[in-house]
Amino acid sequence: MAQTAAIIGGGVIGGGWAARFLLMGWDVQVFDPDPDARRKIAEIVGNARRSLPGLSDVAAPAEGKLTFHATMSAAVKGAIWIQESVPERRALKRKVYQSMQEFCDPDAVIASSTSGFKPSELQGCATRPGQIIVAHPFNPVYLLPLVELVPSDANPPEFVDRAAHILTDIGMHPLRIRAEIDAHVADRLLEAVWREALWLINDGIATTAEIDDAIRYGFGLRWAQMGLFETYRIAGGEAGMRHFIEQFGPCLQWPWTRLTDVPDLTDTLIDRIADQSDAQSGAVSIRDLERIRDDNLVTILRGLKARDWGAGALLNAHDRRVEGAVTLPDDLSQPIPTMARAVPLDWTDYNGHMTEARYLHAFGEATDRMMHLIGCDADYIAAGRSFFTAETHIRHLAEAHAGTVIRIDTQVLAAAGKKMHLFHRMYADDRLLATGEHLLIHVSLETRRACDPEPALAAVLERIAAAHAGLPYDGAGKAVGVKG
Amino acid sequence: MAQTAAIIGGGVIGGGWAARFLLMGWDVQVFDPDPDARRKIAEIVGNARRSLPGLSDVAAPAEGKLTFHATMSAAVKGAIWIQESVPERRALKRKVYQSMQEFCDPDAVIASSTSGFKPSELQGCATRPGQIIVAHPFNPVYLLPLVELVPSDANPPEFVDRAAHILTDIGMHPLRIRAEIDAHVADRLLEAVWREALWLINDGIATTAEIDDAIRYGFGLRWAQMGLFETYRIAGGEAGMRHFIEQFGPCLQWPWTRLTDVPDLTDTLIDRIADQSDAQSGAVSIRDLERIRDDNLVTILRGLKARDWGAGALLNAHDRRVEGAVTLPDDLSQPIPTMARAVPLDWTDYNGHMTEARYLHAFGEATDRMMHLIGCDADYIAAGRSFFTAETHIRHLAEAHAGTVIRIDTQVLAAAGKKMHLFHRMYADDRLLATGEHLLIHVSLETRRACDPEPALAAVLERIAAAHAGLPYDGAGKAVGVKG
Repeated sequence: MAQTAAIIGGGVIGGGWAARFLLMGWDVQVFDPDPDARRKIAEIVGNARRSLPGLSDVAAPAEGKLTFHATMSAAVKGAIWIQESVPERRALKRKVYQSMQEFCDPDAVIASSTSGFKPSELQGCATRPGQIIVAHPFNPVYLLPLVELVPSDANPPEFVDRAAHILTDIGMHPLRIRAEIDAHVADRLLEAVWREALWLINDGIATTAEIDDAIRYGFGLRWAQMGLFETYRIAGGEAGMRHFIEQFGPCLQWPWTRLTDVPDLTDTLIDRIADQSDAQSGAVSIRDLERIRDDNLVTILRGLKARDWGAGALLNAHDRRVEGAVTLPDDLSQPIPTMARAVPLDWTDYNGHMTEARYLHAFGEATDRMMHLIGCDADYIAAGRSFFTAETHIRHLAEAHAGTVIRIDTQVLAAAGKKMHLFHRMYADDRLLATGEHLLIHVSLETRRACDPEPALAAVLERIAAAHAGLPYDGAGKAVGVKG
Repeated sequence: MAQTAAIIGGGVIGGGWAARFLLMGWDVQVFDPDPDARRKIAEIVGNARRSLPGLSDVAAPAEGKLTFHATMSAAVKGAIWIQESVPERRALKRKVYQSMQEFCDPDAVIASSTSGFKPSELQGCATRPGQIIVAHPFNPVYLLPLVELVPSDANPPEFVDRAAHILTDIGMHPLRIRAEIDAHVADRLLEAVWREALWLINDGIATTAEIDDAIRYGFGLRWAQMGLFETYRIAGGEAGMRHFIEQFGPCLQWPWTRLTDVPDLTDTLIDRIADQSDAQSGAVSIRDLERIRDDNLVTILRGLKARDWGAGALLNAHDRRVEGAVTLPDDLSQPIPTMARAVPLDWTDYNGHMTEARYLHAFGEATDRMMHLIGCDADYIAAGRSFFTAETHIRHLAEAHAGTVIRIDTQVLAAAGKKMHLFHRMYADDRLLATGEHLLIHVSLETRRACDPEPALAAVLERIAAAHAGLPYDGAGKAVGVKG
C-alpha cells in the first residue's frame, strides 16, 4: 500500500514536494487555503512528470494519488510525513504545528521547509516538540537532491534517522546539519553571494545578466560537480590544501569586498580544513581529480551544447564561426565528407572507448549533414517536411578512443521517390572503424507519414545517386552476420 | 600562418592558457624560469588534449607549435598576444611589463591573469600603459569559457575590441567589466562564499565535504546553467523579480551571516535590478524558463550519472536501491525483459521525440542487462572477458516521446561458440516502437580478439537459446530495405 504524505502550503516549494512524493509512488494530501492551489500544483506536477521519471534508469513506481482537503485535520490524516511550507513567519508556523498535532499521527515526521528558522525556534510551544524537524529543500524540489535536515536536541536520534531514511527513499540527499544556526548552511553561502551581487549592481560594476554570465560560464560549471574545497584542492596542486590556504588566505584580509569580517587563519583552523579535505578527497590523487573534473566539465558542457544554452550556446557559436558555410562539393564522383571531429570524452566509457550508441550518434549527425547538403535544411524542415530513418545497419570494425579524430564519408546507394538509401563509412586516418547503412523516408512532419520530396531536393539527390552509382559498397545490402 | 602567443609564467593558469592557444592552432612561446615548467605545462597540455578538441562538433585546427625560451625577449618575439601569469605581486608584475615592453610588438595585447589587481595599478609606470589590460581566466583555462576583460581609461576602445575578438576566437567569453575594481566581479562572489565557508568550518557547523555537498547537490547544479538572477526570477514566479526582492529582501537585513553589510534596498535599486532582469530574461516566459531550467538540470544530472559522480552518483545509488537484485526469470520460454524506463528529456530533440541514436543507446543497455543475466557481470568483465557488438540492425516502427515508458524484451536468436545473436523488441505499452538485431562476439579484453566464453556462461546462454528456438523473429535476418 502506498505511503501518505501531507503537504501543508502548496506554493512553489510545497508543490515541488507534492510532485516528488507523488512520482515516487506516495499518496499526497494537500491543504492550502489559496483558491489557486490546485492549478499551481497541477502545473508543478506537470513539470515534474516530464522531467523526473526519466532521471531514473529503472522503472518508476506507479504515481500516487493526489487529493486536496479543506481542513488541515483531513490533510494530515494517515500521513507519516507532513511537510510544512507556509510563509516564513514564526508565529504562523508555530500555530500550524499546534493545530496539526491535535490530529496527526504522533509518530509522523513534521518537517518544515523553512530556509531561515532553527528547529528549536519552531518547536517552541508545540505539544510534541520532538516530532518537528527542519527539512529545507531547493527549488525545483522534484529535481534537486539536496535537503538540509536540521534537528534540535529535542529530536530523538532514531526519529532523525527515520526522517533521513524517508528522504533518501524519495531520491534526496539529506545533509545532516551538525548544529542549528539561522539559515542553516547552503543559504548562508547563497546570502553571501546575493549581498555581494547587490553591491555590484548598486555600484554600477555589473548588470544582472553580467553577474549571471560570470557565474554560469565560470565557477557555476565547477560547482555543479565539485564544491568549493575539492575545486581548490585541485588548484593547490601537488602542494595540497594547506599550501592553497597559506597562499591565498592572506588575500582574504584585503579590503576587496564589502564584507570583510574573516576568521583568523590560525594553525588550528588551517589544520582543520586540511584534515577535512584529506578525509573528503585524499583517496584520489590530484592528477585523478583533475581528470574527473575535466570529464565532468566536458559532460556538462556538451550536455548544455545539446540544449544550446549557457556555456553550450557559446560552444555552438564557436563551431559555427570555425566551420563557416557548408556546401556540396563540386566533384560528386566520390563519397561526400559529412563529418570530421575528435571523439569527445562524453562519448566514451570508463576505459576511454567510444560507446556503441555513439557510432549511431555520429552516423546520425552525418545523415543530418547530408540532408542539409541536399537542401533539407532548417527552412525546408520548418516548412513541414523532413526525412525519418526507417532502418539502420551498423558494422563495428575497429575501436576508437577519446580524442581520436574521426571522419565520415557518405555514399548515396539509392534515391527514388520517398526513399533515400545512404552508406556511411567512418574512418580514423585510413583505418575503417565502422559502416552505417541507413534507409530514410521523406515524411510530412504534420501527418508523420511518407510523402514525396520537393522537386529541387529530389533533383539534387538523384544527381548524387547517379554520380555514386558505380562506386563499390562492400558491407552494405547484407543481413546481420552475413559476410560482406 | 599560425598566430603567436607568448606565455609569461607557466603555472596552472599560464599552462592552461598555453594549452588553449595551442589547441586552437596558435604557436605558443613560453618563458618561465621554473626548471619544472616544461614538465608542468606538458601535463596540462596532456589534460587539455584529451578534453578540449572533442568539445567541438567540427574539426579542430592543427595544433600549434610549443616552444620554451630562456629569455623574456625571445618569448615575446612575434607574439600578438602576451599573457602574464606571474605571482600576484604588483611590483613584480610592473617589472615584467617594463622588461617585455622593451622587446615586444607595440601593437601586441599584454594581458594579465591577475585575479586581484586593477589594470590601472598594473599599467602604473609602464612605457605604453594602453597596451596592458586584465584578462582574468578561470581554472581549468582550457575548458571554462569565462574570462574577465577589464580595461582602464588608458586602453583605447579599439584595443579592447581587438582583445575581446581574440579571446572569442580562442573559444572564450570575454566578460567586459564596466569599471575596474579590486578582484573584478566573479572573485568577489567567490570570496564572499569562501569567507562564509571558513566561518562555518571555524564554528563547527559543517565540514569541507558537507559544504561541498551543499553546493554540488543544490545551487551548484542551478548555477551551471543559469546564474543567480535568472534562477531567482523563476523563483519569483508569475509575480516577477520585483516581488522576489520585496519578499526576500528583508531577510538580508537579518543577522544570519557573519557579513551583514547590505545595500539599502531603495526603490531605485529595486527598479534597477527588475529592469536589468527584464532586459536579460524578459523575452522568455516564466513557464518557458522553468522548462528550459528543467531540461538543463536533467541533462546535467544525467551526464553526471553517466560519470557516476556528484548528484549523478546519488541517482545511481537510488536506482540500485529501487531495483534490488536482478536475476534471470525461471520461465525462459518467452523473450526476457531487459529494460523498463521512462524516456528522459536528454534523449529527445527540441520537439520532444526520442532521437535516433538513443534507440541504440536503449538497445545497448538491454544488451548489457542480458550479458549481466547470463553471468557476464562486473566480476566476469574484471577477469578480462566480455562481449563486443559486431553488427546491429535497427528498424524504427513508431515514435516515442519524453516521458513515454518503454520496455525491451530480448530474444536469443542463436548462441554458439564465440557468437551471441540477440533480437530486442522495444515497446510502449503494446505498441512495437523498434527492433534491434545484434551480433555480439565474446572477446578477451587483453587481446581485444575473439575467444570462447567460460563454460558456465556458455551453458546458460545455450539453455536460453534452446528455449527461444521456436519463437517467431519477424524482422530479423533481413538486410536494410528488405521487407520482413
